Amino acid sequence: MERKYKILVSNDDGIYSEGIQALREAMMEIGEAIVYAPHKQQSAVGHAITTHLPLRVNPYYSNGEFFGYAVTGTPADCVKLAVTTLLEEKLDLIVSGINHGSNAAINVIYSGTVSAATEGTILGIPSIAFSLTTYTDFDFSYAKKVAKKIALTVLKYGLPPGVLLNVNIPAVPEEQINGIRITRQGKSRWNDYFEKRLDPNNREYYWLTGTMDSIELDSDSDIRAIQENFVSVTPIQFDLTAYHFLDELKKWLFD
Amino acid sequence: MERKYKILVSNDDGIYSEGIQALREAMMEIGEAIVYAPHKQQSAVGHAITTHLPLRVNPYYSNGEFFGYAVTGTPADCVKLAVTTLLEEKLDLIVSGINHGSNAAINVIYSGTVSAATEGTILGIPSIAFSLTTYTDFDFSYAKKVAKKIALTVLKYGLPPGVLLNVNIPAVPEEQINGIRITRQGKSRWNDYFEKRLDPNNREYYWLTGTMDSIELDSDSDIRAIQENFVSVTPIQFDLTAYHFLDELKKWLFD
Repeated sequence: MERKYKILVSNDDGIYSEGIQALREAMMEIGEAIVYAPHKQQSAVGHAITTHLPLRVNPYYSNGEFFGYAVTGTPADCVKLAVTTLLEEKLDLIVSGINHGSNAAINVIYSGTVSAATEGTILGIPSIAFSLTTYTDFDFSYAKKVAKKIALTVLKYGLPPGVLLNVNIPAVPEEQINGIRITRQGKSRWNDYFEKRLDPNNREYYWLTGTMDSIELDSDSDIRAIQENFVSVTPIQFDLTAYHFLDELKKWLFD
Repeated sequence: MERKYKILVSNDDGIYSEGIQALREAMMEIGEAIVYAPHKQQSAVGHAITTHLPLRVNPYYSNGEFFGYAVTGTPADCVKLAVTTLLEEKLDLIVSGINHGSNAAINVIYSGTVSAATEGTILGIPSIAFSLTTYTDFDFSYAKKVAKKIALTVLKYGLPPGVLLNVNIPAVPEEQINGIRITRQGKSRWNDYFEKRLDPNNREYYWLTGTMDSIELDSDSDIRAIQENFVSVTPIQFDLTAYHFLDELKKWLFD
């Protein structure tokens, strides 16, 4: 009998969220799904890790059955803790999500969902981040099928060192999906600002708000693929070097 | 008379830290230095932004003189809030640091210092992150000179869209510095794990610890430049697309 795939499941919406339940179920059809996820919402934490505080790990039960472990940390903490310290066997795959809301264009760098998968990649394990592009009306049934399909593909082919996949699934009925498109990270960014308000004691505070630019016309961007009802699959990396600018920078020479 | 350069100064060690005092002083020799910095330590927060809580902004005084504004948020919050909402005039430059400790190799993606500069770049303003490679025995005198020199160079030449500079300054006396080297982000990573301990009530907790790999032999990496007492200047970007893998990924096709 073949060895069962071992798959770590994490997210940034917290272990209680519907998205991680859906992703765990999808992975259980492929292999053993092991859950280490934040004990509470951790959206927009970027690639934060907790160095100044201890972490606690507690078993979490859903409907009376063991579901996984809740960690008092960030998505990157969950993956780092599980892989480096708590799990004895080697993992075949790490998946993160399914996020409630898209993680495309500039949002990729703020995303806790992506960060969990990035940490997996840093630790040398093939990793994938999944997001469903809606904040309401969750129907994870098609997203689960996509997650299973892409996970199986990665288990078959592997991924190059330092590369993970960032997958965004349009929140439309399956029959409206036009297919899967390989994309690049879009250039759209937020037109955001902080709304100034007064608290009940007449003290000022500021709260972030804004809308996403749609400056992206190019069909190979993640954001356009989603708009055109394609599942967007973007290979991303954590080597941030701007190689195209190295030579010109060398000419400046700082004399 | 020429218009004075307007320079935003932020960091991740907090507005009370010595490093931001040094950086502000260096920038005051070039132009007007405007400080918006976290009200407390925010190391290893990655590119976190605060969406679920309001932010407060308070003036901060040092030795009886106005120093800048303390923001109850992350480094990226400080920059976003200042640029999008609070400052009326356009900035010429954003600088972050001087960080207490290096931000090289894999640490770049965990770094709040780099994140402040990244946010500046996203908002279209030339931005630089500065770090001094020590956690003790701070002597910022040479780092201030370097910061001034590199800031002036960027003010003169600008930076390409989407590119920032990540500068690491070896913590050695000036006469031991061998020069400035243009580098790429190194591949070294942490050999880290979580130490398991018991609290006074006999409950388990985990605390991150570890050492940095020194797998990097290549002299054009940030980490080697620092080891060889060169100031390391790495151009980095927030387009995370792994372009080298796009074509192969397209061949998989997910049929």
